[in-house]
Amino acid sequence: MAGPAIILVEPQLGENIGMVARAMLNCGLTELRLVRPRDGWPSDPARAGAAGADSVIDGASLYDTTAEAIADIGAVYATTVRPRDMTKRIVTPRRAAAEMRPLEAAGTRTGLLFGKEAVGLDNDDVALADAVLTVPVNAEFSSLNLAHAVYAASYEWFLAADKTPAQQLRISKEARPANKRELIALFEHLERELDAVGFMHVEEKRPIMIRNIRNIFQRASLTNQEVRTLRGVITSLTKKSGS
Amino acid sequence: MAGPAIILVEPQLGENIGMVARAMLNCGLTELRLVRPRDGWPSDPARAGAAGADSVIDGASLYDTTAEAIADIGAVYATTVRPRDMTKRIVTPRRAAAEMRPLEAAGTRTGLLFGKEAVGLDNDDVALADAVLTVPVNAEFSSLNLAHAVYAASYEWFLAADKTPAQQLRISKEARPANKRELIALFEHLERELDAVGFMHVEEKRPIMIRNIRNIFQRASLTNQEVRTLRGVITSLTKKSGS
Repeated sequence: MAGPAIILVEPQLGENIGMVARAMLNCGLTELRLVRPRDGWPSDPARAGAAGADSVIDGASLYDTTAEAIADIGAVYATTVRPRDMTKRIVTPRRAAAEMRPLEAAGTRTGLLFGKEAVGLDNDDVALADAVLTVPVNAEFSSLNLAHAVYAASYEWFLAADKTPAQQLRISKEARPANKRELIALFEHLERELDAVGFMHVEEKRPIMIRNIRNIFQRASLTNQEVRTLRGVITSLTKKSGS
Repeated sequence: MAGPAIILVEPQLGENIGMVARAMLNCGLTELRLVRPRDGWPSDPARAGAAGADSVIDGASLYDTTAEAIADIGAVYATTVRPRDMTKRIVTPRRAAAEMRPLEAAGTRTGLLFGKEAVGLDNDDVALADAVLTVPVNAEFSSLNLAHAVYAASYEWFLAADKTPAQQLRISKEARPANKRELIALFEHLERELDAVGFMHVEEKRPIMIRNIRNIFQRASLTNQEVRTLRGVITSLTKKSGS
């Protein structure tokens, strides 16, 4: 599945085209189409801005008109933050991604259309699109960098199929989550030493203190290695205090 | 609710700091903290790159160490794509936003920590953080522009409270969705004219053709104005063919 083509209409700065290419490839998109880039093509600033996304730069194709650039595309989203005096469906980047995924999977090409920096798309280009894609943005400061607008749409495309868990515990090499036997042995080691120095001398508070301390270490999601480290810490602290 | 502070550790290019400021304000974030910016501060390239986000640039604060920059913060997320040989919780930007919203609402300051361009955060800075934030990215081209990394996290922060509907029909001024009376009158007008020119001359196919044509215009979600436009189109087409 190719993913949407990114179509830039009259982009001005080569560096911005490069940053767009980089953002695209970060999100697995490779097809860049340029309509009348102001400073010509190829572009050294574009290659520099791409920071290694050379395959996108090398594969970019040039067009004289927006109509030619989208000729083979079945669903085009025109990206703009400006309200237009026209009747059009408006979607978020997330919604657009959810719509484009099944289309691309079924073999219908999709495309995201972006206008020139600061100015955006003209109404004739917007009229060629199936829907307007508007990136949600602070209403009091709504002018997005061109590459950021491309990135928002590309990021949602990528995320729509990304399997990264919302959260995970990354474990350092040669370690694994501690099991309860190891944890309880740590707790008992610590509590033995605390009893020895009289830390829990008020007998009726002892169960609460033990629970509080156990909860601290429980919450830390310790590895077996970290349990060994902490037992070493306790051992050397008690050696010192006993010497 | 202030939203997370954005903390850049040893940023190199002023222009990147500016693009970070712009991306922040696009997402309603205003608090920028800089730890040892390479080219000093204030910075003309930063102001230029901010493209109007002057309030963020003017309000930026400077620190000598990461520890000082995060001293008042209760929950710090270290943004990095590099796996580290340490045990740490890893979260997506969306998950981080979902965690930070209730913290900020309860008065706990939050912060997003970013390392220098191309290099990222060092392990000592990561060790100060509560969790690692990793922006999901194409594994074969994973180096994110600094401002894009900030934007991904800021965008998710903004979206977590944004009420924009996933899709909506934007209606041009002085128009409203057509009601069914107007639509049916349009259908009947068209069908009358098609009958008159013999377009639907095979009687048994007539109901299917009518349904197909009605579905086309139904799907277009027409406004009352557009219904008038289409009726004018039909009237003038039939005038021409009859002259």
